Amino acid sequence: MPVGTVASVKGVPQEIVEELGAQIILGNTYHLYLRPGVETVRKMGGLHGFMSWHRAILTDSGGFQVFSLSELRKLTEEGVTFRSHLDGSSHFFSPESAMEAQIGLGADIIMAFDECTEYPAHQSRLRESMELTARWAARSKKYFEDYKHEVPWNTASGKNLVGTAAIGCAGERQLATAAELRSAGQPKAAVPTGSEATQSLFGIIQGGMDRALRKESAERTIEIGFPGYAIGGLSVGEPREVTREIVESTLEHLPKERPRYLMGVGTPEEIIEYANLGIDMMDCVLPTRAARHGLLFTSEGKVSIKQARYAQDPGPLDPKCACRVCQRYSRAYLRHLYASNEVLAQVLNTIHNLSFYLDTMRRVRHSISLGEEYRFLSGVWSRPAP
Amino acid sequence: MPVGTVASVKGVPQEIVEELGAQIILGNTYHLYLRPGVETVRKMGGLHGFMSWHRAILTDSGGFQVFSLSELRKLTEEGVTFRSHLDGSSHFFSPESAMEAQIGLGADIIMAFDECTEYPAHQSRLRESMELTARWAARSKKYFEDYKHEVPWNTASGKNLVGTAAIGCAGERQLATAAELRSAGQPKAAVPTGSEATQSLFGIIQGGMDRALRKESAERTIEIGFPGYAIGGLSVGEPREVTREIVESTLEHLPKERPRYLMGVGTPEEIIEYANLGIDMMDCVLPTRAARHGLLFTSEGKVSIKQARYAQDPGPLDPKCACRVCQRYSRAYLRHLYASNEVLAQVLNTIHNLSFYLDTMRRVRHSISLGEEYRFLSGVWSRPAP
Repeated sequence: MPVGTVASVKGVPQEIVEELGAQIILGNTYHLYLRPGVETVRKMGGLHGFMSWHRAILTDSGGFQVFSLSELRKLTEEGVTFRSHLDGSSHFFSPESAMEAQIGLGADIIMAFDECTEYPAHQSRLRESMELTARWAARSKKYFEDYKHEVPWNTASGKNLVGTAAIGCAGERQLATAAELRSAGQPKAAVPTGSEATQSLFGIIQGGMDRALRKESAERTIEIGFPGYAIGGLSVGEPREVTREIVESTLEHLPKERPRYLMGVGTPEEIIEYANLGIDMMDCVLPTRAARHGLLFTSEGKVSIKQARYAQDPGPLDPKCACRVCQRYSRAYLRHLYASNEVLAQVLNTIHNLSFYLDTMRRVRHSISLGEEYRFLSGVWSRPAP
Repeated sequence: MPVGTVASVKGVPQEIVEELGAQIILGNTYHLYLRPGVETVRKMGGLHGFMSWHRAILTDSGGFQVFSLSELRKLTEEGVTFRSHLDGSSHFFSPESAMEAQIGLGADIIMAFDECTEYPAHQSRLRESMELTARWAARSKKYFEDYKHEVPWNTASGKNLVGTAAIGCAGERQLATAAELRSAGQPKAAVPTGSEATQSLFGIIQGGMDRALRKESAERTIEIGFPGYAIGGLSVGEPREVTREIVESTLEHLPKERPRYLMGVGTPEEIIEYANLGIDMMDCVLPTRAARHGLLFTSEGKVSIKQARYAQDPGPLDPKCACRVCQRYSRAYLRHLYASNEVLAQVLNTIHNLSFYLDTMRRVRHSISLGEEYRFLSGVWSRPAP
């Protein structure tokens, strides 16, 4: 899932994100709550209407950003008081208010409010944090069940407010999973409409790097019951072998028939590796953020386009890539745009990196469709499928 | 002509500039000379190959930027010594070196090296400056005639170096004027190829706000002989009525059968006004620069999208505009992108403003094709043609 922090995959118009084949993008509740605010998004028909994106959207709970970006003021059983990283204003997030915000934003998949435990952490801290997350998961679900009908695209007023600028969505919804829901104000026969339509709330597994705690977290979260489960609290500074070990062991305790979402990973090699372990969904800022720093992923390895060696290189960035950037522009031109601090550098670099990631996942899906013996091997992601 | 200062119309991929219907864009010799340098562009087959733009390009002579942007060190009969605004390095531009640079950049239309006289200026200063420009025009033409065969797309080596990343140019060249020349490395039957192909060098009329000096400048420049003529030295701070008066009087002395180019204007109202006076070509940074500051041109007047009044406005930016921005996004979303300092704000705002300008010129051309009695009146540019 490409990351569109404040309702924009930075630098790329939605029609090009669609063209790249993204089926779902991620929005950050913390950022959207601060700017433009949940009420504005809700009045525009939710994120789908607001940003004119007619495929699926997932929002995180805001918890990760509260713990990592803001000045954290106070953590209690009830929730978290924090100060905005933008203007220092004081805010409060609880499982209930995080659900209220995510229902107002109206993404197709929303996340339970959790505490992302820091790394490293003591055993006692890990247990307390995991147990708090479990209690918050139950409160998240309760609030969601009580208020899910308030999602903006499930009300008459929401329908009326959406769509004046929302054009070109016919046949856009392609995510054939439990998360497949109707888009904002665009009734389709094949997807739930009216009072049937709702969001999917996923639970989050915590427990740090402790396999037993992860197992317990999974069991307690499954007991509450969600249509999908996420593994949180990884990629927080631990060695990559540890990440893999925890992912692998945690997956054993998650139902295979529900989407399994690994939050915040990873490199192209890693997303292949985790997909092969059984992960269905991942999100990461790496392709978009690296692009803005001139770091590009190609079938021939990473390219730091700022390097002088590319100044007169007439070839495409990635000769095996079919994206509009590789089809039209040279390395020399991309290097020039980056060196000249031109905005188009960010636009084109981001388009290519997203294309590379989405191509990688298409290959993974293709290899899965061919069956076990043809499965892509981790790290050999550039090998064409037989 | 949209302005693409350093080989990029800031923030907009070339394929979208094409989609908007731009037939020709402008590049700035001063900027390109400094970065990436003429030699790099030349080796990539000229600007067409370097930036993968297969329609027409015009480069200015660099004179205006030398006088306005750089630290001017010394002006002599021979030329101008100046310091780069980027790193303070010392450089020298003369009519000969400005031609050499523009031949290397390989635009379809290039400009004689002139001195852009400051405003206001004394009569004696105006005359000296105009006469210097006339002598420089003769030197520009002489150098051009001697070296025009060195244009990168007119040599075997140039052809070999272009095109690896240049795709999608079939049928792209649409400028049916004297400026219609073959594009970089893309031979077409309908346009000159091989040794026939060359650039068009335009002369520039100076003379400040003095009608007699403008007349003399026009006569002397025409005597040298160019395939097109530009009016320079306007929009430098003088009142708009004065601009109009000088344009009108200067046009009387320029041949109607050659393109007449007014440099550095203007607002949507102004470009209609000058087109009606007989101006064929104009360039201005206004649509792109204003877009980056959130100032948008619409059929309902100017919109400052940063204003809070648009925060929950679900309508399109301009209900009469067919551009991809107005077809898909709301004012509320554009306002949010701008307020959040998102790069996509610049991308979408620029696309819309260019669309508005190019639409305006399409209306002007349409009204001209209908004949004198249906001509668009200055300032009534939003009136649909009958």
